[in-house]
Amino acid sequence: MSAPQSLSRVRVRYAETDQMGVVYHANFFIWFEVARTDLLRGAGWTYREMEAEGLSLPVIEAHCSYKQPARYDDELEIRTVGELMSPVRVAFSYEIVRPADGQSLATGRTVHATIDRDGRPSRLPDRVKGLFA
Amino acid sequence: MSAPQSLSRVRVRYAETDQMGVVYHANFFIWFEVARTDLLRGAGWTYREMEAEGLSLPVIEAHCSYKQPARYDDELEIRTVGELMSPVRVAFSYEIVRPADGQSLATGRTVHATIDRDGRPSRLPDRVKGLFA
Amino acid sequence: MSAPQSLSRVRVRYAETDQMGVVYHANFFIWFEVARTDLLRGAGWTYREMEAEGLSLPVIEAHCSYKQPARYDDELEIRTVGELMSPVRVAFSYEIVRPADGQSLATGRTVHATIDRDGRPSRLPDRVKGLFA
Amino acid sequence: MSAPQSLSRVRVRYAETDQMGVVYHANFFIWFEVARTDLLRGAGWTYREMEAEGLSLPVIEAHCSYKQPARYDDELEIRTVGELMSPVRVAFSYEIVRPADGQSLATGRTVHATIDRDGRPSRLPDRVKGLFA
Repeated sequence: MSAPQSLSRVRVRYAETDQMGVVYHANFFIWFEVARTDLLRGAGWTYREMEAEGLSLPVIEAHCSYKQPARYDDELEIRTVGELMSPVRVAFSYEIVRPADGQSLATGRTVHATIDRDGRPSRLPDRVKGLFA
Repeated sequence: MSAPQSLSRVRVRYAETDQMGVVYHANFFIWFEVARTDLLRGAGWTYREMEAEGLSLPVIEAHCSYKQPARYDDELEIRTVGELMSPVRVAFSYEIVRPADGQSLATGRTVHATIDRDGRPSRLPDRVKGLFA
Repeated sequence: MSAPQSLSRVRVRYAETDQMGVVYHANFFIWFEVARTDLLRGAGWTYREMEAEGLSLPVIEAHCSYKQPARYDDELEIRTVGELMSPVRVAFSYEIVRPADGQSLATGRTVHATIDRDGRPSRLPDRVKGLFA
Repeated sequence: MSAPQSLSRVRVRYAETDQMGVVYHANFFIWFEVARTDLLRGAGWTYREMEAEGLSLPVIEAHCSYKQPARYDDELEIRTVGELMSPVRVAFSYEIVRPADGQSLATGRTVHATIDRDGRPSRLPDRVKGLFA
């Protein structure tokens, strides 16, 4: 993956495990959300502010490939890359790595529309475009 | 528990378990929410409509006592009683039972403010008061 | 989608919404899990029993395309089709529909390994193969 | 609150909000879990290791009082105190504070049995007793 890239850290919560003794798969998508929020924060304009100003990025596609299970209390890193697909569509690619043993646990991708308060496609402001390849 | 009372049913989802092999404790509060929504539905005026009209019931206290674990795929019943504590405060009491073996798994209680769109205390409309003892 | 197919129903919980006023996207994967559990139940051999006997179906790929938002208290139907990809790999395809207005909200797909207690690939028993196309 | 005490930090995830625009109340219990895990970590013997060695701390009571809403992207602090109620029962008390404005958002308490692998009451080892008042 090429820059611009961000790095996020999460520690696995007990609530995120299931009775198979590993993290329930849907929770990886929540970590992806944490990761892209961190990437956007890098622009000095948080997603919270973006939404408050009327722009939001609903998920229109979500995908994850699971390679190794994540376990309770694991410290994980999420490497995130943003990609401008069109003036009104962005994507993020993610890789989840466990630094303790260097394992890559999963890769994923989410695609987002950029919409205004009325749900209409809206161009991403120039000040965040630098975050996307 | 005395009437007015409602009965709700949930089946335990895999997502709701944790690595102890039982339901993660915080999920009982989500079932309580399902249960009080069902109780309110009994008035022919759903919580969804109530909120759309500007009245909401944020939780100000939540409590649960856990007696027996709930397990994946269990079919559970939640018995709910509503109580009008004051013109601007209501409470719900819950008991979660597993009909298959008659076990009572947990009891709980939530207390709610009744507020308007601006966050100010707001009286509960007469048409739902009949739901509360 | 062609048979074998199952039909599941969920009602959207308040807990499943986010501050965009719609269901948080990761929760669709939890509904998919509810749906494939229902499909397996159709064989008279539940996933709970399958797992107790040492066979499990961890998710190795998960995908969802979001077309329309799901909202609090919506009653939704999930139509599920199983597919035997290989003796040790199965897939499920899902469509989430809101019967009230006939809208198709999302489609998804999960791929699963079939593994034994030691994590080794294990053939699916004949008695459940009839569930898969 | 008196020592021994630990301090934990969480940042509110989008997934944790609901359509009221604030954090869904049940999620506070997940933060409490993060917080008591941190407190135990202070003994140099993590809850993960404790559980691997056969000792676990299932929740038997959970309570939370909500004073102010938590919002998306808020950075929160959780102050936690442990208390040894009996040789086989411990409690944790929590306060959630938002440092940005000094607001105390919620206080809570959980009570836990200490059980062994067979579910029988089991004394807490001496090496963690120092964590409890």
